[in-house]
Amino acid sequence: MGHDDTMSLARAGRPRLHTQRRPGLTARDEILDAAGELFTTVGYAATSTRTIAEWVGIRQASLYHYFKTKDDILCALLNQTVTPSLRFVGRLADTHPALSAPERLHALAAFDGEQLLSGRWNLGALYLLPELRDSRLEPFWSDRERLRLHYLECGRGVVAQTGVNEVAAGLPFHLVESLVNMWAMPPGPGRVELPLHVADACVRILGVPDAEIAALRERTGEVISVPAVR
Amino acid sequence: MGHDDTMSLARAGRPRLHTQRRPGLTARDEILDAAGELFTTVGYAATSTRTIAEWVGIRQASLYHYFKTKDDILCALLNQTVTPSLRFVGRLADTHPALSAPERLHALAAFDGEQLLSGRWNLGALYLLPELRDSRLEPFWSDRERLRLHYLECGRGVVAQTGVNEVAAGLPFHLVESLVNMWAMPPGPGRVELPLHVADACVRILGVPDAEIAALRERTGEVISVPAVR
Repeated sequence: MGHDDTMSLARAGRPRLHTQRRPGLTARDEILDAAGELFTTVGYAATSTRTIAEWVGIRQASLYHYFKTKDDILCALLNQTVTPSLRFVGRLADTHPALSAPERLHALAAFDGEQLLSGRWNLGALYLLPELRDSRLEPFWSDRERLRLHYLECGRGVVAQTGVNEVAAGLPFHLVESLVNMWAMPPGPGRVELPLHVADACVRILGVPDAEIAALRERTGEVISVPAVR
Repeated sequence: MGHDDTMSLARAGRPRLHTQRRPGLTARDEILDAAGELFTTVGYAATSTRTIAEWVGIRQASLYHYFKTKDDILCALLNQTVTPSLRFVGRLADTHPALSAPERLHALAAFDGEQLLSGRWNLGALYLLPELRDSRLEPFWSDRERLRLHYLECGRGVVAQTGVNEVAAGLPFHLVESLVNMWAMPPGPGRVELPLHVADACVRILGVPDAEIAALRERTGEVISVPAVR
């Protein structure tokens, strides 16, 4: 059958059939995790829902109970890269309504960068797939656009104070996103600190002087540890 | 056959069979251009060498005269995104050996960004394909690594002067590369000026004060217009 190649490739990496790898995960999470691994290693086009189901150790019919199509799985995975940061923006507005534009931008960049870099699979690498232009992935695109506009609004607030050209206000979003290109970096302190350095770069790029950046870091440390509001 | 879906998809966009689109291109260039279009719109995995040959209007056997495998085509396309910038670095060392680190970084970022943004297809979007980890694409990876190290060397030269944390020295390369995420931006002055704004951001991110950036822009304008050394 047409899937054999893919399956043997997938299995060659790590046999998973009929072995539940992480007890405690729901079946839905297991499917998403297996799909994340397959999409980012074997490729989206080369992975079938049948392969995903076999990888998790369930029947294809059971998989369809959770996701109707492969696109639905991709959409759910992509949303994982955006939803936590959008929630963070909303939470920040509630808990710290008086933050300045540089403070909000620095905190958002540090949180968002940490999210992108800490996932089990480099899901951000899927952003540029041609398949992604599909309108069926619309829920993801609107959320990502909302996140981009939050960055842009903070960025505009900063350049209004520093006088840097407004074009630069659009760059922090892309700078944080470029962390997906650094995902393969080996573990260690350099990797752990990277999101904070990128957050520094996001405000420096908009003309915030170095003398103010230490204070922004301190502020970010405070607001990122704020517990989620129920 | 398995290719029918891909072909009808491809043809639906723009029928190309048996019509040479750009007279003056060599057959090799035609193949690369068609492959660039198919890989970035239909997808790499979903495009066969047969589809590429039909799209160009030649037989598959003729295509194999130029490229032995689909990987070879991908490798040649990816090299197009790196080779001009590497040549630029070499040329700059010959024609302007006395440039400072910020001057070299600004000029390289402006040139490289312009390359990434001005191609007919968003080839940079192929960088994160899982298929790309393949060692058969080694010639591309070594060249890209050489380019990254040029950026890093310039970046280190800059932070040695400004005192910004050395982690930042690695960011300009990724910032320029993030232009592939802005490739879909509509044409206009904003798009034309983007590489220069990104070049400004590359030096600002490393702590170069705004007062010096206007002079860097002027210098870059001079060195980018230098004719190629024969």
